[in-house]
Amino acid sequence: MTALDDLPIRDDLRGQRPYGAPQALVPVALNVNENTHPIPEVVAHDIVASLASAVLTVNRYPDREFTELREALAVYLGHGVTPEQMWAGNGSNEVLQHILQAFGGPGRSLLGFTPTYSMYPLLAAGVGTRWIPATRDAEFELSPETAARQVAEADPDLVFLCSPNNPTGTPLSLETITAVYEASRGMVIVDEAYAEFAPDDEASALTLLEGRPRLIVSRTMSKAFAFAGVRLGYLAADPAVVDALRLVRLPYHLSALTQAAATAALRHADEMLAMVDDIRTQRDRLVVELGRLGYDPKRSGSNFVLFGGVADPHAAFEALFARGILIRDVGIPNHLRVTAGTEAETTSFLEALAAISPA
Amino acid sequence: MTALDDLPIRDDLRGQRPYGAPQALVPVALNVNENTHPIPEVVAHDIVASLASAVLTVNRYPDREFTELREALAVYLGHGVTPEQMWAGNGSNEVLQHILQAFGGPGRSLLGFTPTYSMYPLLAAGVGTRWIPATRDAEFELSPETAARQVAEADPDLVFLCSPNNPTGTPLSLETITAVYEASRGMVIVDEAYAEFAPDDEASALTLLEGRPRLIVSRTMSKAFAFAGVRLGYLAADPAVVDALRLVRLPYHLSALTQAAATAALRHADEMLAMVDDIRTQRDRLVVELGRLGYDPKRSGSNFVLFGGVADPHAAFEALFARGILIRDVGIPNHLRVTAGTEAETTSFLEALAAISPA
Repeated sequence: MTALDDLPIRDDLRGQRPYGAPQALVPVALNVNENTHPIPEVVAHDIVASLASAVLTVNRYPDREFTELREALAVYLGHGVTPEQMWAGNGSNEVLQHILQAFGGPGRSLLGFTPTYSMYPLLAAGVGTRWIPATRDAEFELSPETAARQVAEADPDLVFLCSPNNPTGTPLSLETITAVYEASRGMVIVDEAYAEFAPDDEASALTLLEGRPRLIVSRTMSKAFAFAGVRLGYLAADPAVVDALRLVRLPYHLSALTQAAATAALRHADEMLAMVDDIRTQRDRLVVELGRLGYDPKRSGSNFVLFGGVADPHAAFEALFARGILIRDVGIPNHLRVTAGTEAETTSFLEALAAISPA
Repeated sequence: MTALDDLPIRDDLRGQRPYGAPQALVPVALNVNENTHPIPEVVAHDIVASLASAVLTVNRYPDREFTELREALAVYLGHGVTPEQMWAGNGSNEVLQHILQAFGGPGRSLLGFTPTYSMYPLLAAGVGTRWIPATRDAEFELSPETAARQVAEADPDLVFLCSPNNPTGTPLSLETITAVYEASRGMVIVDEAYAEFAPDDEASALTLLEGRPRLIVSRTMSKAFAFAGVRLGYLAADPAVVDALRLVRLPYHLSALTQAAATAALRHADEMLAMVDDIRTQRDRLVVELGRLGYDPKRSGSNFVLFGGVADPHAAFEALFARGILIRDVGIPNHLRVTAGTEAETTSFLEALAAISPA
């Protein structure tokens, strides 16, 4: 039998293991920050009707410019964003990969503030970009001074700012974003994958796009739109940035089915986002109840909560798993991360955690 | 307004223009080797039913291992291929990109025999792999000696063999493939995107997989399966190769919709492939009729025909376009390429060409 090491794979891949959040089937899966609410039935019907129409012409290549989808995404985002400013990919990972292919690559570097989204260094490695891990303030916060100082010192070609940050949930201020932009000569990407879960009074980095051609704001339909299975990430930026991404994307990268489903869902943005308020309520409940149980939950602007004070995260993870509840050990000592589910799922998690505490 | 050159894009991208087959709406589009037959209605119904079922759970991430789809692909391919040997991506371009990410990249090289599929050098550039253009024999043929000699001299990390070759249609013998494999220390990829259109007595490189862990055979559902809009490319190789690709693919790269649609279509492989015979008949008709019109058609094992003897390809292309017929100027002097369409489309093309000949 041939082993991986018998093959002429790249040296930097030797010994690596693939990304592997467990895919276990459990009653309560709160491990990968999915929206645990199925999409509303009336919306599902409209999506299926759009898919049925698309199937009639799938013998042809899809619209390489996904014109309708870009129009729908611009309308959804608002803030005066135009279709020429929109780009999309198969999940925000692919969108971020396009950015790295156009502005990163060999001889270039990407800076991020750790702990942050675990895919950033993997995406960088995938296209030969050097990863520069920068640090955060206490409680995983990131002040304008801390951020700008490290960017100025490292002088990276790209900065990824996860807002709110995954896996900590920490919101990021517009002041920090503008400070990083001013300290940098490169591209500054604000990853707003969880933006819809932010408090109502918190402004999006979309409000900063005007006059900042090196700024990119990425989003996803995976979370708030309950569309993780459809794989639709997107971004808004200067039209020149979108031109740059056209140089590196694979032709026809977005299937006719993806375009049809996403465009249909965006027609129902209000209904698709109706569960966001419920999820925010459960998230806030998690913060309160985790504190009551003696843990140290961090403030969160997303659909998940990171909590400290876990004596043995591995043991707690396993004890919850034995009760049919899957959460995430993100590798931060004494911390675990849990997604805000439905009210019933959140109750199940809290009751199970109470039963096994102190862990 | 910001221009592309005002942004810090990679130096090797400066001055480039994106891949751009025209997306014009014309009555007879025979330019990108699509299958011009819509998929059969009964199959479309089953695909839509599968999509409707998938939509119910798209709030969750898709199966990262696309288990059912890999099983269906292995059954379809036959030749004793197992699901562990299967890999898939959003179009064969993405599958080839995965291969280059795992086995190519900075400091490594990819050899191909030009003229060949125009995406190969672009895919190589996208992940920093050096492109080595090798040459063919007369009439775009490729003998074992010509191929092996150039591979031995250039010592590339990867070789892409397009079989049959795009844009020339030239079939490739198993002897040339084994000669290249033996002359090479790197990965050898046989791109069989058009394999289903080959003569019945022509063997696939799938028959060579056993005992050759550096050999990869890639396929697509875009052509014979009339599924270009769904974006499903795949490959068969040693399970260790599949392990290597897991290291570089983006997590959840295949959407739940793509998995559902492709799996459903594979249940109907016989019906989906029913039009392949019609297309081969039209292809053979093109070769005969193009010769009668005084052109020099090349032998083809695919769903398109390259023909020489065109005095002014640009003028002929434009004259056909003015008559509502879109074919492809692939940049080979005095040649044009036409896809075999339905009988009516092929007739339209031949009549229009006769009307404008000699071009």
